[in-house]
Amino acid sequence: MALSEFDLIDRFFRHCGASRADVRLGVGDDAALLACPPGEVLAAAVDTLVEGVHFPPGSPAESIGHRALAVNLSDLAAMGARPAWALLALTLPSADATWLSAFTAGFAALAEAHAVTLVGGDTTHGPLTVTVTILGHVAATDALRRSGAAPGDALFVSGTPGDAAAGLALEQGRLQGVEGAQQLRDRFLFPTPRVALGERLRAYASGCIDVSDGLVADALKLARASGCGVEIAATALPLSGPLRTLGLKRARDFALTGGDDYELCFTVPLERVARLQAELPCEQWGYTRIGTVSAESGVRVRDEEGALTVSSEGYDHFVSG
Amino acid sequence: MALSEFDLIDRFFRHCGASRADVRLGVGDDAALLACPPGEVLAAAVDTLVEGVHFPPGSPAESIGHRALAVNLSDLAAMGARPAWALLALTLPSADATWLSAFTAGFAALAEAHAVTLVGGDTTHGPLTVTVTILGHVAATDALRRSGAAPGDALFVSGTPGDAAAGLALEQGRLQGVEGAQQLRDRFLFPTPRVALGERLRAYASGCIDVSDGLVADALKLARASGCGVEIAATALPLSGPLRTLGLKRARDFALTGGDDYELCFTVPLERVARLQAELPCEQWGYTRIGTVSAESGVRVRDEEGALTVSSEGYDHFVSG
Repeated sequence: MALSEFDLIDRFFRHCGASRADVRLGVGDDAALLACPPGEVLAAAVDTLVEGVHFPPGSPAESIGHRALAVNLSDLAAMGARPAWALLALTLPSADATWLSAFTAGFAALAEAHAVTLVGGDTTHGPLTVTVTILGHVAATDALRRSGAAPGDALFVSGTPGDAAAGLALEQGRLQGVEGAQQLRDRFLFPTPRVALGERLRAYASGCIDVSDGLVADALKLARASGCGVEIAATALPLSGPLRTLGLKRARDFALTGGDDYELCFTVPLERVARLQAELPCEQWGYTRIGTVSAESGVRVRDEEGALTVSSEGYDHFVSG
Repeated sequence: MALSEFDLIDRFFRHCGASRADVRLGVGDDAALLACPPGEVLAAAVDTLVEGVHFPPGSPAESIGHRALAVNLSDLAAMGARPAWALLALTLPSADATWLSAFTAGFAALAEAHAVTLVGGDTTHGPLTVTVTILGHVAATDALRRSGAAPGDALFVSGTPGDAAAGLALEQGRLQGVEGAQQLRDRFLFPTPRVALGERLRAYASGCIDVSDGLVADALKLARASGCGVEIAATALPLSGPLRTLGLKRARDFALTGGDDYELCFTVPLERVARLQAELPCEQWGYTRIGTVSAESGVRVRDEEGALTVSSEGYDHFVSG
């Protein structure tokens, strides 16, 4: 790309997202300068979306901008951290002003909704790849981790997992004729990172992870980090109306193994469950108890007929029958 | 890539770089938790290297790992900030253990030399693209910026600019039969970010930028950010022995317009120049006075014959005669 094209891109990124007093120096110098709140630790995560791997070629630019930030906000949500600043590394085959405008709109709308400022970026020429680094903060002693779950803890998930995977299948034409298809597509194209829930869960949860690779795969990661296992009751899975139209078996398969939900999977010690449900009503906060942490390692899913075998390898080798 | 390949990669990245007490939680959860020193601000920058754009296809993996971190360390050096933590987003066509081992060795050696810890990463499948986010800290009032230069300030550059561009030309077979070719290649493959110099310059410099796009192009960015211009004396350019073997004209062209040097270009008010030179001897710190900041905008280069015309557009439209 010629210099003038980079200048164009700079204009898109120079004032993107919220305005924050703690940004001492934003986009435009060799590095951004940011004031961290005293007494808190910095929370930092990075995630990449590659065209053709993480989203179908030709996906709406607004969705790509939204998702690139959303998947990173979801990482901070899983730590109970409050997001503040983002850096964007955008590799583009060409500088198309219409595409960039829509991409930036998708990114900026979500950034503003979470009071996040874009403080740095790098634009390079190459196959479409979007990497966002998200920075936020949290009181060090309060941060949620994957490693805190203990046998007996209740297992929860937010939202209605499986919708995004069904939405992707619809986008790719692998699924057809579904009632409420647009709702499912939107769950893939514009996922909602559970930032506020993550922050509130610091007072209740023993362990937390975000669901990006699928509920079983991510629950397994949480279980392994905590040195235990989990049992999931398939009958308790929260299934959305549109997902249910696929039939119970397929809906549950999507909910258990579909990725891209960016919901939170978390554990709460039994003695705190009543207080959680009283102070953060599930109808309002949108979470569901789906199982229990077990001493035995691995993930087991039980349905009306009994136990389903789930390999400890998780998603890759998921056995559904 | 299958899960097991990602596991392999995780092993490479889990203990990479220095060990730091301020890393409260490193690679392995949804986000890293990092303790910022009180009274300092966070400095954050991101840079991407794309195969075939920023390095030739088939470049040594150790060099790619080194450069991905070096270009980011150089951004912090230009702010006078001290690096601390890095996040790595690596997009790979395949998980080749030999390649990954060499890449990680190159990254880790430089990270350890600068007491930097890798605290987060994401590995994805796609065309080879490496994005590093570097985080460090600096006293807010001390940070170097591009915008502080004023007319009359002396203009300096570190190292011997042009070597890396000549080294790249050698790597690509565009240049042949040069004495000391390996020294030039090494300046491209393994650039030295001037972190210690940047930190020390906080006490002297009025403005600073790192030289990544070429001396004229980057001096122009510094000048523009400061609302002034610069005059460069071609006769003062520090040229390495191997670069000189190309002849004076070509050597100067490389020094003025070649990229990838990752040296520092900085300005110092005249009244501080004597103290700079006394306290940071140039023979030891490797910098050279090459010109002066002017009130007139743009970059002008003068040689023995008089003025060369340099367009205010910089590198892209550089006119050498």
